[in-house]
Amino acid sequence: MTTVGVGMVGHAFMGRAHSQAWRNVGPFFGPPLSPVMAVLAGRSAERAGAAARALGWAAVETDWKELLRRDDVDLVDICTPGDSHAEIAVAALDAGKHVLCEKPLANTVAEAAAMADAAERARARGVRAMVGFNYRRVPAIALARRLVADGRLGAVRQVRAQYLQDWLADADAPYTWRMDRDRAGSGALGDIGAHIIDTVQHVTGQRITGVSSLLGTFVPERPRPGGGTGRVTVDDAALFIGRTDGGALASFEATRVAAGRKNALRVEVNGSDGSLAFDLESLNELWFHDRAEDAETAGFRRILVTEPVHPYAGKWWPPGHLLGYEHTFTHQAADLLTAIAEGGDPSPSFADGLQVQRVLAAVQAGAESGAWTDVEGSA
Amino acid sequence: MTTVGVGMVGHAFMGRAHSQAWRNVGPFFGPPLSPVMAVLAGRSAERAGAAARALGWAAVETDWKELLRRDDVDLVDICTPGDSHAEIAVAALDAGKHVLCEKPLANTVAEAAAMADAAERARARGVRAMVGFNYRRVPAIALARRLVADGRLGAVRQVRAQYLQDWLADADAPYTWRMDRDRAGSGALGDIGAHIIDTVQHVTGQRITGVSSLLGTFVPERPRPGGGTGRVTVDDAALFIGRTDGGALASFEATRVAAGRKNALRVEVNGSDGSLAFDLESLNELWFHDRAEDAETAGFRRILVTEPVHPYAGKWWPPGHLLGYEHTFTHQAADLLTAIAEGGDPSPSFADGLQVQRVLAAVQAGAESGAWTDVEGSA
Amino acid sequence: MTTVGVGMVGHAFMGRAHSQAWRNVGPFFGPPLSPVMAVLAGRSAERAGAAARALGWAAVETDWKELLRRDDVDLVDICTPGDSHAEIAVAALDAGKHVLCEKPLANTVAEAAAMADAAERARARGVRAMVGFNYRRVPAIALARRLVADGRLGAVRQVRAQYLQDWLADADAPYTWRMDRDRAGSGALGDIGAHIIDTVQHVTGQRITGVSSLLGTFVPERPRPGGGTGRVTVDDAALFIGRTDGGALASFEATRVAAGRKNALRVEVNGSDGSLAFDLESLNELWFHDRAEDAETAGFRRILVTEPVHPYAGKWWPPGHLLGYEHTFTHQAADLLTAIAEGGDPSPSFADGLQVQRVLAAVQAGAESGAWTDVEGSA
Amino acid sequence: MTTVGVGMVGHAFMGRAHSQAWRNVGPFFGPPLSPVMAVLAGRSAERAGAAARALGWAAVETDWKELLRRDDVDLVDICTPGDSHAEIAVAALDAGKHVLCEKPLANTVAEAAAMADAAERARARGVRAMVGFNYRRVPAIALARRLVADGRLGAVRQVRAQYLQDWLADADAPYTWRMDRDRAGSGALGDIGAHIIDTVQHVTGQRITGVSSLLGTFVPERPRPGGGTGRVTVDDAALFIGRTDGGALASFEATRVAAGRKNALRVEVNGSDGSLAFDLESLNELWFHDRAEDAETAGFRRILVTEPVHPYAGKWWPPGHLLGYEHTFTHQAADLLTAIAEGGDPSPSFADGLQVQRVLAAVQAGAESGAWTDVEGSA
Repeated sequence: MTTVGVGMVGHAFMGRAHSQAWRNVGPFFGPPLSPVMAVLAGRSAERAGAAARALGWAAVETDWKELLRRDDVDLVDICTPGDSHAEIAVAALDAGKHVLCEKPLANTVAEAAAMADAAERARARGVRAMVGFNYRRVPAIALARRLVADGRLGAVRQVRAQYLQDWLADADAPYTWRMDRDRAGSGALGDIGAHIIDTVQHVTGQRITGVSSLLGTFVPERPRPGGGTGRVTVDDAALFIGRTDGGALASFEATRVAAGRKNALRVEVNGSDGSLAFDLESLNELWFHDRAEDAETAGFRRILVTEPVHPYAGKWWPPGHLLGYEHTFTHQAADLLTAIAEGGDPSPSFADGLQVQRVLAAVQAGAESGAWTDVEGSA
Repeated sequence: MTTVGVGMVGHAFMGRAHSQAWRNVGPFFGPPLSPVMAVLAGRSAERAGAAARALGWAAVETDWKELLRRDDVDLVDICTPGDSHAEIAVAALDAGKHVLCEKPLANTVAEAAAMADAAERARARGVRAMVGFNYRRVPAIALARRLVADGRLGAVRQVRAQYLQDWLADADAPYTWRMDRDRAGSGALGDIGAHIIDTVQHVTGQRITGVSSLLGTFVPERPRPGGGTGRVTVDDAALFIGRTDGGALASFEATRVAAGRKNALRVEVNGSDGSLAFDLESLNELWFHDRAEDAETAGFRRILVTEPVHPYAGKWWPPGHLLGYEHTFTHQAADLLTAIAEGGDPSPSFADGLQVQRVLAAVQAGAESGAWTDVEGSA
Repeated sequence: MTTVGVGMVGHAFMGRAHSQAWRNVGPFFGPPLSPVMAVLAGRSAERAGAAARALGWAAVETDWKELLRRDDVDLVDICTPGDSHAEIAVAALDAGKHVLCEKPLANTVAEAAAMADAAERARARGVRAMVGFNYRRVPAIALARRLVADGRLGAVRQVRAQYLQDWLADADAPYTWRMDRDRAGSGALGDIGAHIIDTVQHVTGQRITGVSSLLGTFVPERPRPGGGTGRVTVDDAALFIGRTDGGALASFEATRVAAGRKNALRVEVNGSDGSLAFDLESLNELWFHDRAEDAETAGFRRILVTEPVHPYAGKWWPPGHLLGYEHTFTHQAADLLTAIAEGGDPSPSFADGLQVQRVLAAVQAGAESGAWTDVEGSA
Repeated sequence: MTTVGVGMVGHAFMGRAHSQAWRNVGPFFGPPLSPVMAVLAGRSAERAGAAARALGWAAVETDWKELLRRDDVDLVDICTPGDSHAEIAVAALDAGKHVLCEKPLANTVAEAAAMADAAERARARGVRAMVGFNYRRVPAIALARRLVADGRLGAVRQVRAQYLQDWLADADAPYTWRMDRDRAGSGALGDIGAHIIDTVQHVTGQRITGVSSLLGTFVPERPRPGGGTGRVTVDDAALFIGRTDGGALASFEATRVAAGRKNALRVEVNGSDGSLAFDLESLNELWFHDRAEDAETAGFRRILVTEPVHPYAGKWWPPGHLLGYEHTFTHQAADLLTAIAEGGDPSPSFADGLQVQRVLAAVQAGAESGAWTDVEGSA
């Protein structure tokens, strides 16, 4: 079987998750190309070496640029913070390496646009690029998209999406670079708001065209680990309402201060013929209401999305045996490897990532102006 | 025991609910004043007579103005559509009758302001006025307010409120006066949006000061029962985000086209020290998270709000024996009778109703302008 | 309209619930016979008088036997403890009064048999008798029965039923007559186990024919309110498994020491073609799974049993407006009044009550012998 | 780092799950011994070879006995059907190989006893044996055991456990060896009933001492894939009630015909001071009620068992990121490797497996006799 050599940049949370995907995609999905965990790049030789041993990477580099020169690297997997995405991705694509880049695609629209351009150039040469909105590959979310696409909901009328976390609910949670707008771009908005924007657009097949928005920072200063305090220059919470190009109304909320909610990405879709509801804290379940049901026995159904007929699920275990968070990365790897092997366009593309970035920019601008703000390029 | 003679105007849905309250408040709450179901007013003598017999009213009038002249009527209970509230309420208060008026207080801010003025005048003479935001008296909502007031949530940071129904999801649902802006004032916004505005303000003890909003009409024409179609001039759905005078961010959504949701008034509150969640479709439950809990056993608790220590619940049945929708009206009657007997100010007042009307007006104006809109009087 | 004079014996918890039914059945169900709350009987003139005033009864008697002599009493409603049921019911029936008797029908099979005989005799003279298994009239339970009867579940194979309460979980909860076998007959078994036996048999349309059982008493002594302790001679919990005459296997559990469960009457039915699940702590919901659904969207549906097409629900409020515990008594009253007016046999009959008593006796006997025990009369 | 060579026998469902564990235990748990996936044994060279390639095993054997002779095998992992467990396990232990054996330990008490003896002999030589009741390592179940052991529930009074599946609900599901008592030992009882017996005993720390039981077969004949029908000689469902050595009462139900339930292993524990509830279909959640809570805010808490303080969870992802079914096997591997490295006794032991087998035998015997049956060895 032909193989694809993978070089991964970064080895924190996302690096561990991606490693898990490359390690397990073979046994479960038997992809047409077999990934080889060739090289791990990290700035510290010591820490990168330890990570490589723990996670199963064959070699280590301390400069990501070396990956572009290595023959055993066909694909660069970018798991670094957002401010380095553009430089690495553009260079890798221009060097003829396929790229998988974590979300959000970049910290600014300009960077994202440059990356989308590079992806378009690379595509002409058979080089593939994908942005890591992994939640598209939660089986329940993939099923939701399928049901909408199959017309089971009729015309989509309303969507409400929330991503609620609480790791900043405590005012004593320490100051980190994530609270610094210069480095992080934004707060909850870009970090988790990007996920619900992508999820809603993916499930409905529609694009957000304009928004009204509000950003809030409830804890303006936080203690620095070493002493003193840091000023928080990003949002703790982002709320916005908007319209889609399909005529739907949508509301969004991303927050990192919702006490008691750990990872509650929730999406509800109401259509003319039915409705859907999902919560990532119960990720194996999709709730579906079919308006055609008899009133006597109509109701939202709790679908346990573990059947062979469900997206991805049949590759794993028998019905009723649950999947977890990390499986989404394995699904992502499987689909990317298939796209590379078959010469297809992996999805979500860098263009998709750019469009999400434009929505984020509109939300940020709208919060500052107080006015309705069109999303760039959606006219 | 002293009694209060009640004259009720209107005998449709709300008239039935209010009758149930007057009939049952005595046995369960033993209020200091005992209500006498004296007169029912309705335009058709025949239909009003049938209703009076069915619901247990002693007499019938076909002109509500007669109620103001009758000595056996101490309290006028207004259960008519919103466009007649102002005239009846102002006249009744000026005639020295206590008034209970269904929500929303009126169809316009001007009417509501006139009513609040009349209530203020009447108050000086010991005459009481109350607007019927009955959901304040769901035990779980009353408990939510108590927990916030007791500081169990710390500083309120975020609120999300939705009122989802689906009786207009079907594009073939017939045209009625409720789709005519001239008669109904607005659509989902005033009908059920008013409820979530009041509920959020009541639970948090904070007022909405400004909003960004969107209104949508998904079914622009509906069949008239007699043939032909009617143009829908009100909203099917209203979305808005706003700020409160306590520094919280809040999102709201009212819709009558959310397929599969029958009566889902949902409120979530996140504070610095804890969170609450409620859904009217499970109205005996309040979910509470206390951030002070040990991580090992922390989680949202499903409080079954049926304990003697809970608001209103102890007057009914033993723990675990559920209450329903109609009990809220009985609680409302009990509190109003107590206020009248004790010379207190019943809550929600007409001034509260006016303030809700001003929020509704800001939402309507903001949806038209696309700009952030301050709520009148909240500066 | 013709009326039925009601004389109620007892005015504690059940007396309040039954009063609520007689007071409200008219407005909502418009029964063919209108109940008149004529007389309340209680041993203490003072307490009975106060109860009559609070609950709306026109007169008071201190000896229930007087009810049998009064012309304004057509129906005797027995809300006393179980050890007095037989004497009152037999006398009332023999006096030509219709009887509604609270459950369990009696404390012993012998008493219950005498009552069933009296009911049979009375029936020949057009006099009606009904035992108050009110939970049959929870709309969701009535719907469950309908779905089974309509064949929506196919052949019933398995049933599991639990009635979990916790008011005796605290070892310091005081000793009362309910812990004395001589007076109460049994503990959780007769008190709440009777309800799940009736509910399961009603929903499935099948009868329990034999059982294996276990009874347990976890708190053998309890403090007496006046000082000292009382020995608990009844069960805190009863577990049994059994067979039905329809070939199903069933498990049952009744307990008053399940910490945190307030009133959790839970029933699940699995048939060859579908399944049902119900919990009285969410009494407006019925969960239904139809095995014929496509695997892609199959799942248990949460039916909100508040639609016009659902049993009883259409008489109350619009869809999504919940009912509570007490409504079951109103439904019971409506059905009894209809049966009396139409000369039908109200259900559950005293014969049904006797059969439940025989199951209770088999459970008690089986717990003592450790052996499988047939239910009397089910051969 | 020292390594442990693993030789696995069998490569069906359990073989895939165990392979996943050996592949991933290193990166996440960094165990003191590193597993090497050395050899896979399967009767067909072709199928075993394909499985080894897919699952990542280095070599293949067609006779499991070869594993005992290989120096690169330190641990034999038995993933075959139950009727071969005894022979393989005893031989492996006697050959000085550590053994991990899938559950149930064997098909008969005699086999299980021989295995427990062999484990005891091997233990004296530092050779370890473990039986694969993997659900003990669901974080929520491990947390449940911890809370009971910490006294958070007080004295355990009642337990109810169910394992509900539906893959045999369809009467047309084909006949396989699993319906043949000679080969499978029993039906739902041994297959999934064994899991709830072990789980209840593990969580409560108590042993079942006696039972009353019922077995049922609802579909007595099933179509054979090649034509004709096969007679089902095992149970579709097993129900039993019993006592524990700690004075608790418990009910159990295992079924493969509960329409709509895919993998619902449900356990509830009620103690004098609190309660727990769990459902494998929501495996990241544990519900906990603490009786010491104030009545105002008391309720069952939904604990999302993904915090660093929770068993196993901290090794994986941040809070709120769910785990799945397969993780239990990784936890099992980690604990076994640690026990081997540290010379400890892995749990559950073969003696534990034997005791479960004795409970299964008592259930089977009791179902035949109809009488209460003591569990062997529990006097």
